[in-house]
Amino acid sequence: MPIATPLTELLGITHPILSAPMDTIAGSRLTRAVSEAGGFGILGGGYGDRARLQTEAAELKGFAPFGIGFITWSLAQQPELLDIALDARPQAIMLSFGDPAPFAPRIKARGARLICQVQSEDMARQALAAGADILIAQGTEAGGHGASRTTVDIVPAIVDLAAGRVPVVAAGGIADGRGLAAMMMLGASGVLIGTRFYASVEANGAEEAKQRICAADSNDTVRGVVFDWSRNLFWPAPFTARSLVNDHVRRWTGREIELMQRASEVAVEYAAAKAAGNFEVAAVFAGEAVGLIHDIPPAAEIVERIATEAEQLLAGRRNSMTAAKNSSPSPGGGGKDEQPERPSHVA
Amino acid sequence: MPIATPLTELLGITHPILSAPMDTIAGSRLTRAVSEAGGFGILGGGYGDRARLQTEAAELKGFAPFGIGFITWSLAQQPELLDIALDARPQAIMLSFGDPAPFAPRIKARGARLICQVQSEDMARQALAAGADILIAQGTEAGGHGASRTTVDIVPAIVDLAAGRVPVVAAGGIADGRGLAAMMMLGASGVLIGTRFYASVEANGAEEAKQRICAADSNDTVRGVVFDWSRNLFWPAPFTARSLVNDHVRRWTGREIELMQRASEVAVEYAAAKAAGNFEVAAVFAGEAVGLIHDIPPAAEIVERIATEAEQLLAGRRNSMTAAKNSSPSPGGGGKDEQPERPSHVA
Ligand SMILES: Cc1cc2nc3c(=O)[nH]c(=O)nc-3n(C[C@H](O)[C@H](O)[C@H](O)COP(=O)(O)O)c2cc1C
Ligand SMILES: Cc1cc2nc3c(=O)[nH]c(=O)nc-3n(C[C@H](O)[C@H](O)[C@H](O)COP(=O)(O)O)c2cc1C
Repeated sequence: MPIATPLTELLGITHPILSAPMDTIAGSRLTRAVSEAGGFGILGGGYGDRARLQTEAAELKGFAPFGIGFITWSLAQQPELLDIALDARPQAIMLSFGDPAPFAPRIKARGARLICQVQSEDMARQALAAGADILIAQGTEAGGHGASRTTVDIVPAIVDLAAGRVPVVAAGGIADGRGLAAMMMLGASGVLIGTRFYASVEANGAEEAKQRICAADSNDTVRGVVFDWSRNLFWPAPFTARSLVNDHVRRWTGREIELMQRASEVAVEYAAAKAAGNFEVAAVFAGEAVGLIHDIPPAAEIVERIATEAEQLLAGRRNSMTAAKNSSPSPGGGGKDEQPERPSHVA
Repeated sequence: MPIATPLTELLGITHPILSAPMDTIAGSRLTRAVSEAGGFGILGGGYGDRARLQTEAAELKGFAPFGIGFITWSLAQQPELLDIALDARPQAIMLSFGDPAPFAPRIKARGARLICQVQSEDMARQALAAGADILIAQGTEAGGHGASRTTVDIVPAIVDLAAGRVPVVAAGGIADGRGLAAMMMLGASGVLIGTRFYASVEANGAEEAKQRICAADSNDTVRGVVFDWSRNLFWPAPFTARSLVNDHVRRWTGREIELMQRASEVAVEYAAAKAAGNFEVAAVFAGEAVGLIHDIPPAAEIVERIATEAEQLLAGRRNSMTAAKNSSPSPGGGGKDEQPERPSHVA
């Protein structure tokens, strides 16, 4: 039976699984695939490419339910993009990395829900004051931009702060049903997932980028400013970006001041390498969850796997199995379960 | 009904809750209190104070079940301390921060279980090769010494690596039943908790240190080398220590090279401040879980609270409540539940 939460009720979705608005990686194809599978797809608004947004949003118009996400400080430089987004009639607009207050009234007036991704209690208070309908508590494990607090720390902190007024969604490091079930136990009403959906058929990323995500383990990611500065992108503190480690990031980490001084020269090199698809220079933005990702399935299969595994864990299927075998001590447990490596519990 | 796992079976305990061997903070009083409450108390072996170990271990002799924990690289400098520990007949010896192989045979020969705390897959492999009976996967959220991987990342990684051969315990950032339940969903068989037990009646810490833990939020901790170097303690990489932020750490963070050069002078100042109980200089080692800690109860009450809350979450009590109200959408949910701030789920 699907996991029903205040989030699934509010958005009218089957599974409490949102796909992240990953810049250009999360186009209309991924958004649609996630929503059609019973999750909630969120189109990446990116850094303000108006033509792209118009095309992608048009693809989704009339389709339901879905969301469109913006990088708030970037949207502030081109606030009219919000109207293009709202014209596609998304169920929700997601804002991250900045003060949502200037945009909230327009979003609300058009009947869309306001989802705010936050990295601290202060940002959560700001979002609630602006009228956020849903908070996303993002941990440092996340791929792409974020801050320093960990998922295990920030999720219960924001759940306690929200105090039941709005659903809280957990983000950062979640790629399987264990993660979804764990976040539910911490009090979240669902999860926002990026990296796992990057390695899906429908994501716009290069095939090689997806394969690098599959090959990497979680020691292979790093959070920093090297890739932003190499693209002449200067994000406001406290935000940095998590990516896979490659030659370029190894070369410049610890030499950020020099990188800053040579930024325009490096930007030319970087753009050329990116255009050539050289991923030892170009970034693959991805989170610590890469350690849990080993294939590139259709997005619908990802939604299904995560939902099913979480449903089983939450329904305590493993409970009854362990209960039955409780008299014979077996460290590591599991027995005939199809996933014997996961010790079960009896509640 | 108590949560039964391969860990509780192996150690013969009621609740899958271990108290951490926090240096001198975790003395025989805390160890005993945790074990008497149905958890598993672990005495801190500290940095090799033989007389203290003898006294504390003697207090526990004959008492069951309990463990004794050592900092492995420190034990290697005084390997005979292991015999003092084993003479008290603990059910388990816990080793952290170093290669357990040299000590494993003696531990096994005396019939004690070997618990190894690890911070990476390589350390987990080393511990399994040495014959570890239980692995503790420690995230960077932890108070005291540790490394950089987060709990949400390292726990499933070690669970997958252990593949059911031994129970895996989660450590770092856990202070309530939500955390225990979440770690069970990630595949752990229990939790090791430090900071929460520091703020207990029976911990050996100064009253002011305990109060500072209650007052702090998780933004108030930092991981680094300042306090170690100020005590002339030079830990091997990749280990650093997480503590509360105070004047001393603010003063020296970012100036570690100067601190190293002035280490003997600073050590004198530091020792004097510590003796005087000046916690704007002296360290309070504590983890990000401080944000969840607001009181200083008896350890038994902590065990009870965590176990009860986790049992309720895992048994899905909240499930049935939400199920009953499922027809009336209520963002934030909760209704008449005694903890309305925690959105429920239906599995
Ligand atoms: C490739 C990539 C691009 C991202 N771009 C954005 C973005 O443009 N806007 C945004 O709000 N979040 C962005 N994120 C962060 C996500 O919103 C989300 O917090 C994150 O993916 C969750 O962690 P996970 O990657 O471990 O699932 C991006 C993440 C990735 C992996
Ligand atoms: C004050 C303090 C002292 C610690 N000393 C030790 C120690 O001597 N040996 C050890 O193995 N771990 C030590 N730890 C780490 C714990 O074993 C454990 O990993 C940690 O407390 C778990 O995270 P938590 O503090 O968030 O519960 C210490 C932790 C604290 C808070």
